Amino acid sequence: MHHYPPSIRTLIRNLSKLPGVGEKTAERLAIHILRKPFAEAEQLAHSIVAVKEKIKLCDMCYALSDAPRCHICQDESRDQSLLCVVEQPADMVSIEKSGAFKGLYHILGGVLSPMEGIGPQELRMNELRQRLAKGVVKEVILATGTGVEGESTADYIARQIVPSEIKVSRIATGVPVGGDLKYIDQMTLKCAMESRHGI
Amino acid sequence: MHHYPPSIRTLIRNLSKLPGVGEKTAERLAIHILRKPFAEAEQLAHSIVAVKEKIKLCDMCYALSDAPRCHICQDESRDQSLLCVVEQPADMVSIEKSGAFKGLYHILGGVLSPMEGIGPQELRMNELRQRLAKGVVKEVILATGTGVEGESTADYIARQIVPSEIKVSRIATGVPVGGDLKYIDQMTLKCAMESRHGI
Repeated sequence: MHHYPPSIRTLIRNLSKLPGVGEKTAERLAIHILRKPFAEAEQLAHSIVAVKEKIKLCDMCYALSDAPRCHICQDESRDQSLLCVVEQPADMVSIEKSGAFKGLYHILGGVLSPMEGIGPQELRMNELRQRLAKGVVKEVILATGTGVEGESTADYIARQIVPSEIKVSRIATGVPVGGDLKYIDQMTLKCAMESRHGI
Repeated sequence: MHHYPPSIRTLIRNLSKLPGVGEKTAERLAIHILRKPFAEAEQLAHSIVAVKEKIKLCDMCYALSDAPRCHICQDESRDQSLLCVVEQPADMVSIEKSGAFKGLYHILGGVLSPMEGIGPQELRMNELRQRLAKGVVKEVILATGTGVEGESTADYIARQIVPSEIKVSRIATGVPVGGDLKYIDQMTLKCAMESRHGI
């Protein structure tokens, strides 16, 4: 690394702060950037700064958004009576990719985790309560993770946050599509067995 | 990808132009950049532009350099009588990392490749001839690759470029250190066998 001129060393150091990018990869990326036209390097640099300047959280669901309200919350064709609660923006993106949901989202910003000092105050529980109080939502779908913390967070929301007149549901746990049963852990198999349904 | 706001999509698109970075990785890097402080993102962006603005080729050896002359050519403690000829700047960096060479370099910019239309005019052969004409260099070490094109380039330089009063040598071909013989190709083993030396 000290065999490179200072400007390349700085670039390698900054690139290697990215996740999954070691010094070798950073070196390769830096050399690639060096070989590309100036305009292309500038575009990349510009988009890095632009994303930090422009991205805010949607003031309704807390998704990442360039506008004060995200494109999903703005979309009046979506079912306003269905609200899917997720941990993080990435979870919302995954569900959107599946195409299986056409309602709105609420992003908690994490899960309850007493070990890490994350209680209801650290998450967007009050914001969720206020949204539900408006009376538009008819069903809350809890799509937090299926681990211990995700389950207890879903449980907390079902008991403490959602008013009794609103339906609460939980995403199904089971064997992933294309999953080979011999590689599936026993907890998942147990859940899949218990949630079996007639065909 | 279309589930992200425009500024994130632009960043993902630009990041996925980097070598070895697919859309999934670009997505992960973009989300990481989003989560980092503004100053860190700005530093990364700045170093990308800076490297393009600052890096020139050394006017003596054609290595990458921030200054008109690179730190190796500027270093008077290095042996000015030894000149190592390599294909690319990355090859020079590899040899520097090995610590096995304390002379100067000459970077050709590639290898002779009739298939790709790369003849002596496309490489820095004349520049090499001019350097050697100054009479300071006593030995030229040919460190082009050990494939067909690297060998024929080394051969061409030895015959056509280096004056007869200057010694010419070629880096050794053989089994890499730590190499398990059963995984080494037959050409390499043949070379290693032919270049055997007494112990």
